[in-house]
This record gives sequence, structure tokens and C-alpha cells, in this order.
Amino acid sequence: MVKYLKQDEAIKIDELLFNEYKFSVDQLMELAGVSCADAIARCYPDRQRVLVACGPGNNGGDGLVCSRHLKHYGYLPTVLYPKQPDNELYKRLAQQCKTVDIPILTNVEECGDVNKKFDIIVDALFGFSFKPPVRPLFVPIIDLLKSIKLPICSIDIPSGWHVENGKPDDGIQPELLISLTAPKLCAKSFCGKFHYLGGRFVPFALAEQYELNLPLYPGTDKCVPLQA
Amino acid sequence: MVKYLKQDEAIKIDELLFNEYKFSVDQLMELAGVSCADAIARCYPDRQRVLVACGPGNNGGDGLVCSRHLKHYGYLPTVLYPKQPDNELYKRLAQQCKTVDIPILTNVEECGDVNKKFDIIVDALFGFSFKPPVRPLFVPIIDLLKSIKLPICSIDIPSGWHVENGKPDDGIQPELLISLTAPKLCAKSFCGKFHYLGGRFVPFALAEQYELNLPLYPGTDKCVPLQA
Repeated sequence: MVKYLKQDEAIKIDELLFNEYKFSVDQLMELAGVSCADAIARCYPDRQRVLVACGPGNNGGDGLVCSRHLKHYGYLPTVLYPKQPDNELYKRLAQQCKTVDIPILTNVEECGDVNKKFDIIVDALFGFSFKPPVRPLFVPIIDLLKSIKLPICSIDIPSGWHVENGKPDDGIQPELLISLTAPKLCAKSFCGKFHYLGGRFVPFALAEQYELNLPLYPGTDKCVPLQA
Repeated sequence: MVKYLKQDEAIKIDELLFNEYKFSVDQLMELAGVSCADAIARCYPDRQRVLVACGPGNNGGDGLVCSRHLKHYGYLPTVLYPKQPDNELYKRLAQQCKTVDIPILTNVEECGDVNKKFDIIVDALFGFSFKPPVRPLFVPIIDLLKSIKLPICSIDIPSGWHVENGKPDDGIQPELLISLTAPKLCAKSFCGKFHYLGGRFVPFALAEQYELNLPLYPGTDKCVPLQA
């Protein structure tokens, strides 16, 4: 059975991918974002209008890349990106979205009536390095995700959940969770419809070292469904 | 009908992708390499042992990325990389191959009896910025490609061909050509079995500006067959 990672294991594997296996953030984020877009397209082929809520870190970066690929797949993404860090990579990723006519909003109020204007929400707020509590700027977005009627697709971690302990009593309830590299412990309390694994780049030696027991990705697929 | 680019147009579009559209080489090379691996896997599902001949520039970089993804797809790539430039990106890409146990050879003689040891060859020697003549170091590899009985898959440009004028009298004869971004003029004299387009990242405004008339990629496919 696939291994569910503790927070420190996830952090360590991430460090190894960069330092030992010599990947750049650009590379892995591109591959992670592609696999998220592919999983979303597979689960929601007919839900075109996508609101992608992006946080200030790498999870948000994955969300920006995912948005761009969704646009190329014919979807109509809108990015909600309230805190845009002064970081060269994130600025480039945001610019890449803008040049394919993806609107970037900075305030949740700009989204309007989300239940009417969108068909689906991608939660790319916080990833595996998240530690509670949620910062005030993001509280209204988490509240929106809690109250919304649309399906939520969470990238790697359902935002606001504890990476190891899982869903808090009033936590968001994603319908699709796309675990990246390997699922984190919190995914054990995921009870949505679809659980996918993405990020088909884990070197075999690293997977062995951490006994990840990753499932086989079929053919050239960039994502694979995980058994409940 | 899809546009076939002149050399200066290909160079200009490449520059725009980096300078105007803010892509990094890492990003585009990753996406280009994935689409090459996907096209190869589609055309040759049963030819596992792949020799990937990589040149010293970006075409070789695409070949390294392609090799890594082929390995993840279950293929058995070997890289022939005679001139390894002292460049951080290429060194990282080569290292990424090594860490998934892809042998990297530096000399064509090390390849042994290529017809027996491999099922297919990927030609990632020279790309759209190539100007003849072929440098002496690469002449034996081009000679090998000319004499070989195995199918050749050329990335973007069949190596040794003039980017605009196409196949020289004694040029190599790839069976699969994967044009990246948009086909180059030389592809008009391609008469192999499979012609694919890869690199599903061209911003719509750029495609319009250059009247590329790109075909629609189906679903989430990373490559699409081009009509002869």
C-alpha cells in the first residue's frame, strides 16, 4: 500500500529532489501543475469555469501552472491570488497566466457570486509546509471554500487541514484531492470522490529509500487514481 | 494549414517565449521533452531499448528530458552525449538521467552493435539554430544514423538537415519527426511514417501574431499528429 508521509518526510523528500536529484523548482512545479490539470480534466470534463485560489508559496505556484495548462485544455480559469510574493519565479508564472488571458484577482470580493460564476474551485492555497493557524488574509477564502456548493479540487493538501492530523471539525471538504509525489498523512481522512496521485518524477531510488510504494502510472499518464 | 517556420521565425518565437512570455528554459525544455516522450511512446509502444543521441545545445537538453520521461514510462533509454557543455542546466539534466539509472555514454564506439542492442534511436543532436556543416565530433554519429536499420525519431529537426531547405541528398531518414512549437520549413521534405507536433505551451497571442494555425491538441494530450 502507498505510504502516507509525515510532514518532516515530505519536507525531506522535497529537499532531496532539489539538492540531491538536482531538479529545479521550475521543472517540478511544471510537472506537478500538469498532473493537477490532467487530473481535474479527467474528473471534471464538463466544468469549464474554474476559480483557482492560489497561496503565496509553492502550492500557489502549482496552482498557477495548473491554471495555464487548464487554459490550454480549453477551460476558462480565473486565478484568485491575494498575496503575490516578490519572487522572480512566481512573478513569471503569474505573467504566463496573464498572457493567455487568465484574469488574476487579488481580492475574494472581486470573484462575485462564486456559485453562479464558476463550475469548480481549485484550492492551491497551502501545501505540506503549512502550519496552522490560517493567516487573516486567507480566512475569507477558506470561509468561501467552506460555504461553497461547488466541487473543490485540493492540490496536495486540503487547505487549512493539519498535514498529519487531517481534517479539523470545520475543515473544507474537497471532492478531488491530488496528492503530489506521495500522499501526506492527512489524506487518510479524505473522504471525497476522487483521490489522485500526481508528480510522475520521483526517482526510483528515492521511492525505495522512503518505501513510498507508489502505484504504477499507466502508459504515459501524468496522474493515477489512488485506492481508498 | 499549419505554418512551417523559417529559421529566423523559429529563433524569434523562441526569444519571445523567454523574454516576452517569461518562460524559463527549464520549463519549456521539460514540456518539450515530455511531448517527445509521449509521441515516441505512442508510435513505438513495444520498442523498449532506446538510444538517445544528444547534442550540446537545447535540442540535446530536450533529449535528456525525453530520456528521463521515457524511463518513467518503462522504457530502457541509454544516452549518447559526446559533448557535455559546462552549463548548469545541462549538468543538472544529465545528473537527473544518471539518478534514474540511465547510462550516459560519451563515445559512439561505446554503443556497441547498435542494431542489436537497441530497438529505436532518438536524434536530439541539432535543433533549429543548426547551421551546416556538422562538426567533426558529431560526424560519426550522423554516419551511424545514416547506416542504421532502426527507426529514428528526430526531435524538432532531422539532424544534419538544413532547417529551411530540408533533407540533403545523403541526409538521415527519420521515421518519426516531432516538431516542437511549430514545424520548421525542412519538415516539408519529411517523408517518414509519423509527424507529430509537441510543445503545448504556445500562448494564443503568439500563435496569432505568427499565424501558426496550430492544430487542436485533443483532450489533455501533449502531442498531436500533423497531416502530411
